[in-house]
Amino acid sequence: MTWTLEEVAKHNTASSCWVIIKNQVYDVSEFLSEHPGGTSIILKYAGRDATLAYEPIHPKDALEKNLPSSKHLGPVDSFSASVLKAEKENRQKTKDELRVEEALNQRPPLHRILSLVDMENVARHVLSHKALSYYSSAADDEITMDENARAFSRFFFNARVMRPVSKINVSTTILGYQSSIPLFVSGAALAKLGHPLGEANITRGAAKSKIIQMVSSNASLSYEEIAKAASPSQTLFFQLYKHQDDAIAEKRVRDVEKLGYKAIWLTVDAIVPGNRERDIKSPWVLEEQDGPPKYYTEGEGSADQTNIFGTAGALIVNDDRDMTWERTIPWLRSVTKLPIVIKGIQCVEDAVLAAQAGVNGILISNHGGRQLEYSMPPLEILYRLRRQHPEVFEKMEVYIDGGVRRGTDILKALCLGAKAVGMGRPFLYAQSAYGEIGVIKIVDILKRELSTAMALLGASDITQLTPDMVERVDWQPIQRSKL
Amino acid sequence: MTWTLEEVAKHNTASSCWVIIKNQVYDVSEFLSEHPGGTSIILKYAGRDATLAYEPIHPKDALEKNLPSSKHLGPVDSFSASVLKAEKENRQKTKDELRVEEALNQRPPLHRILSLVDMENVARHVLSHKALSYYSSAADDEITMDENARAFSRFFFNARVMRPVSKINVSTTILGYQSSIPLFVSGAALAKLGHPLGEANITRGAAKSKIIQMVSSNASLSYEEIAKAASPSQTLFFQLYKHQDDAIAEKRVRDVEKLGYKAIWLTVDAIVPGNRERDIKSPWVLEEQDGPPKYYTEGEGSADQTNIFGTAGALIVNDDRDMTWERTIPWLRSVTKLPIVIKGIQCVEDAVLAAQAGVNGILISNHGGRQLEYSMPPLEILYRLRRQHPEVFEKMEVYIDGGVRRGTDILKALCLGAKAVGMGRPFLYAQSAYGEIGVIKIVDILKRELSTAMALLGASDITQLTPDMVERVDWQPIQRSKL
Amino acid sequence: MTWTLEEVAKHNTASSCWVIIKNQVYDVSEFLSEHPGGTSIILKYAGRDATLAYEPIHPKDALEKNLPSSKHLGPVDSFSASVLKAEKENRQKTKDELRVEEALNQRPPLHRILSLVDMENVARHVLSHKALSYYSSAADDEITMDENARAFSRFFFNARVMRPVSKINVSTTILGYQSSIPLFVSGAALAKLGHPLGEANITRGAAKSKIIQMVSSNASLSYEEIAKAASPSQTLFFQLYKHQDDAIAEKRVRDVEKLGYKAIWLTVDAIVPGNRERDIKSPWVLEEQDGPPKYYTEGEGSADQTNIFGTAGALIVNDDRDMTWERTIPWLRSVTKLPIVIKGIQCVEDAVLAAQAGVNGILISNHGGRQLEYSMPPLEILYRLRRQHPEVFEKMEVYIDGGVRRGTDILKALCLGAKAVGMGRPFLYAQSAYGEIGVIKIVDILKRELSTAMALLGASDITQLTPDMVERVDWQPIQRSKL
Amino acid sequence: MTWTLEEVAKHNTASSCWVIIKNQVYDVSEFLSEHPGGTSIILKYAGRDATLAYEPIHPKDALEKNLPSSKHLGPVDSFSASVLKAEKENRQKTKDELRVEEALNQRPPLHRILSLVDMENVARHVLSHKALSYYSSAADDEITMDENARAFSRFFFNARVMRPVSKINVSTTILGYQSSIPLFVSGAALAKLGHPLGEANITRGAAKSKIIQMVSSNASLSYEEIAKAASPSQTLFFQLYKHQDDAIAEKRVRDVEKLGYKAIWLTVDAIVPGNRERDIKSPWVLEEQDGPPKYYTEGEGSADQTNIFGTAGALIVNDDRDMTWERTIPWLRSVTKLPIVIKGIQCVEDAVLAAQAGVNGILISNHGGRQLEYSMPPLEILYRLRRQHPEVFEKMEVYIDGGVRRGTDILKALCLGAKAVGMGRPFLYAQSAYGEIGVIKIVDILKRELSTAMALLGASDITQLTPDMVERVDWQPIQRSKL
Repeated sequence: MTWTLEEVAKHNTASSCWVIIKNQVYDVSEFLSEHPGGTSIILKYAGRDATLAYEPIHPKDALEKNLPSSKHLGPVDSFSASVLKAEKENRQKTKDELRVEEALNQRPPLHRILSLVDMENVARHVLSHKALSYYSSAADDEITMDENARAFSRFFFNARVMRPVSKINVSTTILGYQSSIPLFVSGAALAKLGHPLGEANITRGAAKSKIIQMVSSNASLSYEEIAKAASPSQTLFFQLYKHQDDAIAEKRVRDVEKLGYKAIWLTVDAIVPGNRERDIKSPWVLEEQDGPPKYYTEGEGSADQTNIFGTAGALIVNDDRDMTWERTIPWLRSVTKLPIVIKGIQCVEDAVLAAQAGVNGILISNHGGRQLEYSMPPLEILYRLRRQHPEVFEKMEVYIDGGVRRGTDILKALCLGAKAVGMGRPFLYAQSAYGEIGVIKIVDILKRELSTAMALLGASDITQLTPDMVERVDWQPIQRSKL
Repeated sequence: MTWTLEEVAKHNTASSCWVIIKNQVYDVSEFLSEHPGGTSIILKYAGRDATLAYEPIHPKDALEKNLPSSKHLGPVDSFSASVLKAEKENRQKTKDELRVEEALNQRPPLHRILSLVDMENVARHVLSHKALSYYSSAADDEITMDENARAFSRFFFNARVMRPVSKINVSTTILGYQSSIPLFVSGAALAKLGHPLGEANITRGAAKSKIIQMVSSNASLSYEEIAKAASPSQTLFFQLYKHQDDAIAEKRVRDVEKLGYKAIWLTVDAIVPGNRERDIKSPWVLEEQDGPPKYYTEGEGSADQTNIFGTAGALIVNDDRDMTWERTIPWLRSVTKLPIVIKGIQCVEDAVLAAQAGVNGILISNHGGRQLEYSMPPLEILYRLRRQHPEVFEKMEVYIDGGVRRGTDILKALCLGAKAVGMGRPFLYAQSAYGEIGVIKIVDILKRELSTAMALLGASDITQLTPDMVERVDWQPIQRSKL
Repeated sequence: MTWTLEEVAKHNTASSCWVIIKNQVYDVSEFLSEHPGGTSIILKYAGRDATLAYEPIHPKDALEKNLPSSKHLGPVDSFSASVLKAEKENRQKTKDELRVEEALNQRPPLHRILSLVDMENVARHVLSHKALSYYSSAADDEITMDENARAFSRFFFNARVMRPVSKINVSTTILGYQSSIPLFVSGAALAKLGHPLGEANITRGAAKSKIIQMVSSNASLSYEEIAKAASPSQTLFFQLYKHQDDAIAEKRVRDVEKLGYKAIWLTVDAIVPGNRERDIKSPWVLEEQDGPPKYYTEGEGSADQTNIFGTAGALIVNDDRDMTWERTIPWLRSVTKLPIVIKGIQCVEDAVLAAQAGVNGILISNHGGRQLEYSMPPLEILYRLRRQHPEVFEKMEVYIDGGVRRGTDILKALCLGAKAVGMGRPFLYAQSAYGEIGVIKIVDILKRELSTAMALLGASDITQLTPDMVERVDWQPIQRSKL
Repeated sequence: MTWTLEEVAKHNTASSCWVIIKNQVYDVSEFLSEHPGGTSIILKYAGRDATLAYEPIHPKDALEKNLPSSKHLGPVDSFSASVLKAEKENRQKTKDELRVEEALNQRPPLHRILSLVDMENVARHVLSHKALSYYSSAADDEITMDENARAFSRFFFNARVMRPVSKINVSTTILGYQSSIPLFVSGAALAKLGHPLGEANITRGAAKSKIIQMVSSNASLSYEEIAKAASPSQTLFFQLYKHQDDAIAEKRVRDVEKLGYKAIWLTVDAIVPGNRERDIKSPWVLEEQDGPPKYYTEGEGSADQTNIFGTAGALIVNDDRDMTWERTIPWLRSVTKLPIVIKGIQCVEDAVLAAQAGVNGILISNHGGRQLEYSMPPLEILYRLRRQHPEVFEKMEVYIDGGVRRGTDILKALCLGAKAVGMGRPFLYAQSAYGEIGVIKIVDILKRELSTAMALLGASDITQLTPDMVERVDWQPIQRSKL
């Protein structure tokens, strides 16, 4: 059975809401209230083709997974398909799309990218406004995001001289798996917003760079697709957003274990959506670029017509908000033999509890400043943990992410006891700017920077790094980026 | 008996000064020297209609209350009334009025207001220069006002994870009265400057938001009018500026008790008018917008022709400047059974004295930075009080106001022991921008922000908040507002 | 005997150098090398009329005092006098003079000056470039000058409430002499650069404001002229720059004692000229305003053709650079019965030595940041002195100057133990902007500000001020001035 | 035998690469891979005249020293020479060259240079983009470079008064050699980039100023040429970049000892090239000034075509990266009797080790911030060393460099125990701006500034300077330069 556009167009209300995705018709009426991204964004396309909005933020199989097959009504007829195709081809590009096209043509040659800031600069030009808003946004006034980075600027080196450094080795292991540099990809969602190939760029770049990728439950490619993109010997970790239904969560864990993922990183810092105003406001900015401004009309109530969760916040509406040390860790151990890392430790006390709970590692992280505004910067927590509870570093591996942009940043974290550091946004920016080779490029840059800094610090090997090599200063240094 | 404009016009001197307010003629010759706002502002309208200047800053019954009935000379005649009406209608609008009209038409849709800063941005556009100057001004160089807010930026969270937060409860009580959020309206005067309905917007919005309003003695609506605007079950507190004459003060307290106000908040931080230069200079700015600039002429003396008290400072000229713990608290207890809160505690020592004096609560406040420049920020005092005298929090309720703009601000104060926080300016801005629904909107925003932050901090209920959940950092974080 | 311009013009070399000042001819050939302002500035006028350059920076009797009468050659003839007069009248004004004329016409009405910053703003417009450069300049990069002021911003008040403050008394004594406010005029030179009446404006304003003036040895009016301008009961102090020749110094001290000066303030912080680049560069800026720019020509050596001492630095070339506690204080005691104050103490240790030396007071001062760059800010020294050596305050009076601009600044210094504070530049700015009433105006402003701040701090009298009322905070507050 | 341009032009590939330098033909095919500046920069000139690029960064004898004589193929023929000459004369100047020519004509008269900042300002205008990029660049985000200077701003003086200072003596000795001021020239490379006479300007200026120059192994004049430029009695030190081949290193040490150099300063802070992005990017900026911008083309790999070492980093590729205290110091003692100074100590621990190793002095330095980003500022290390290990100052001389720009900077370092301070960039800027007399000028300025500051600090001689005369403050002062 096929459908005409006219028939579909009749189902343009909340009570009967059909949409077309890649020439297939779906009845999403009952799904509306469950849609993580909110009702209104779907209703905007009720009775119409929603492909353009759907594609960049959903894995291919998202609809199939979430909708009973009875709601999959079948394709549009061939005439309708040709109409949709013509519409798509004739669609007038938005100002933002035209800007992006031009920016893509004017990217600098890759060899002129010297630093992660250079890379981010390119990305900021070529990203759509929506993608940049989603990637770059953080909670509230974006203070924590910036403070994560600023924390690094308060740590100076006590560099040692007259030590042999002709051969520098920056490789290490993470949970026993080899990494060419103490750096991994922190789970970062919706890579397709920035590049049509999405997370696969990162996976393939990581393979070539011999680093490990932690894959988000909420990636715009499914974890099956990403596993498929990986090379045979490549190590992948899985970032678990635990579903409130233990059975569903268990299935997901068993799935990824079967797919060859090597560790479960349980996310605990994103229990509710963060307040990311830049992201929430993004659609309005675009709307006004191409149309007249919207004004308040008397009588408009205070009721919220705003998707307050932003682009992706709602992905977590069904997550477990009642996890505890007592219940959740034993449960997770019971369903998998994989190593467990807690992602999102934000204070010394919880680091100690995690060690007591017997997990294999913790990632000190505040989700890149995207969740709780004024969460303590990870580097500061690492510093306190090292001073107050050095024994914790013996019991499990400790990682941090948030604000890492330079080889010296990595080096400081290592001196203070981190086994490795994660980065999220930089990989999204790199793949958005140049695809897979962008990813390779920034790892190359960081390897060079880290090697240089280690040699100048007087260490030829990561094992030679010690806490006394860094000193937290009592003034606020300049923080400069050439952004 | 009625009056012609010609007759009124003869009384245009300090010795015989008549003015017309809403077509009524008043002889204010003897009142001139008692006018809280100073003599010169009245003389400007001697022999003329003063309605436009009078209305936005006086409660309806202000003249009746302050002037003996013999000075109420009766109405102008009907021809004069029609002349005044025509004049009013034909009056050329000032540049500022025209600007405000346009700004009102260009307010963004209410659902696009995501934060209190967004709301303030709208208010700053739609407020008259005079109103904005009065609302936004603070003492001297406005450093204390800004430092009140900056203090919050020095406190970071030690967020806890793996705690059940699926159900967040942000409600609390203040002096035993329910509040849907640990937030109340701090007494803020002259709401009619910003919106024709004035304080009633706040009262009605508070009712719908289920929060408590502390009503200023100096509101532009009288406390009777505000009580009338309230819903039956709504809780109102009264902010008392104590008259130097105990009998007058007693009458006022008994009045408000009868009107149903539920507590007396005795103001002690505004014993003399603060030096608010932005407010004082406001009339000159307006004058020069519509006319030629004024220059110095040789011979002008140094004698002051300036209303150094600004828009409202003079409201307090008859207040009691000799209050003491020994005399004033017992007196107040003797005239009312209502709970007593001291508003304006500015150091740890006085907080201890207040507890010893047996009051029911203190509001640590420096009047929003409008009074003593370089008064210690309330949050800093709260922090010191918590560390040095934790027992104080057992004896009475402690509140703070000044600089609160985000849910995380409220949360920090609660962690440090505050029972609730007050806000003043944000309510004035909200009602100026959108009236009553503006008020509701900002409470909604703060409820959402507070709930989110509590969940991410690992607390499902206000009682779970503890001082170790915040840490005062030793660097100066970025302070950013998107204003 | 009279002279023609032609005859004078022949003496236009260093070996025979004549100049005309107010139609009188002087042979300054032998004086050239002694001229405090350097040789080159005189040679510029050799054989010519120098009146315009001479007048604003020299007391009337300067030439008579410094030149033997034989070198006073007598007047020009009447024809020459008329030529000079015509030249003066026809002289084309410089761009800077034209700018100043316009600025003088556009000064705001005096009653609109609300703060010392407002006053300085006027002065900065009406001052000639040369005068502003001299007044506003400070050592090297002018960091100490700014840090003097910034120091005040680090001290916050612990304000007390519920204290009787209906009557505020801000008067005090300095060395036993009445002052209407704990404020005095710090010695400030060359007031004639800013206003034709020069220091007399300050003297007369001080009389009316009932404050005490400390008169500089280097004023552009002589100390006799200033004594003459004073009212009978007015208190004047004398700021002594001690000549290296004790006899000359003794004569000066005895002179001022006879003239009725009430104390000797011995200057010890200006033993050599400070490096004030803004002042030194001022002539070049003016030169290029009215003419073509100057460029380097190959062959120009490194030999210095620059008056590296600036406008007034050279005034001190003959001062005593070998003063010691052992020698100088006993000598000064031996030549005068007047109280002795050391002006220019810059550390705690020297404050203690001064107390041991038995002087009557010290002025903690770094000469307004005009001498040693990175000299510790006076308020910081006062704070340390109060904590480390409270006994010093019992033995002598302690004053500070540098950076005082607000009533709260004065109040902070008083809380920390200062008997009074001095101000220099603000008086120069005030008299430049409005003459004598400008001086009165700023004292009025400070009285009002101080009274207000004291009431809000909970003190009705200066004796109630205590160190615990201020607290040095550990963060860097905003420092804002509306300049 | 002579060559035609046509013949040379055939050798334009990596496998056969000839270049012409000053009309001489060289076969550099085999040398390509050894070229410290990288292969690509030579290949750019393969088969062509490379004189213009070669001259400013190589000592005259560099090619002879590095190339076997068999690869020196002889001159071009006279017709070719005339063609090259004509080409050179007719060559169109680049935009940057034209800009520099104009800037040279518009330099201010030398006597108007009042400070090192003034001098740097001139240099920044007259330097080619390439030279400025090389001189001014520093590691990564150039934070350490700026923090080196900012460190000085945290130290304030406790100035002493009433001390005899009529005669100020700023001279001292360094390793026993007289210096007119406690200042020396720190090794700084490639002076010819800024001025055709190169390092000789500094050498001659140092002679006239009676200060000591430390000559870099990597100067654009050879150390023989510099020794020749020196005056007979002039003291020169040698900055040794130790070759990894001890024999080559030994020869160099013996050479300079014979040439009369008086000490060996062993460089240990530049063991690998620093990451100087400003310098690396410089050629691209110039390229785009005169031509079309370069864009990324799909397919460009991540392989590096960038000379990541910048202008001079590669000078050190053959340096010894395995130096140790145990091996290297005894070896150096064994090959020379000259005093040994370790240049590049960056923490207290290594300063102690150096003293134990028995060297004659240490230069606390992070190479002007050009090597390890976030290396602790030298002044901070000096301060810690003075407090923690005062005995070190008894055992050897301690110097610092990095960020010194004012007489007060020198004075602070001396108070904290430094025997002298070094400066690098300021000498490069001075010689670039005015040649030899520029060098003399800045020493004159610093002598004057230091003398003034010492007098105002209460010290007539360097021996009177003590640690208590400076105080490290706990706030961040303004840091201002008039740059």
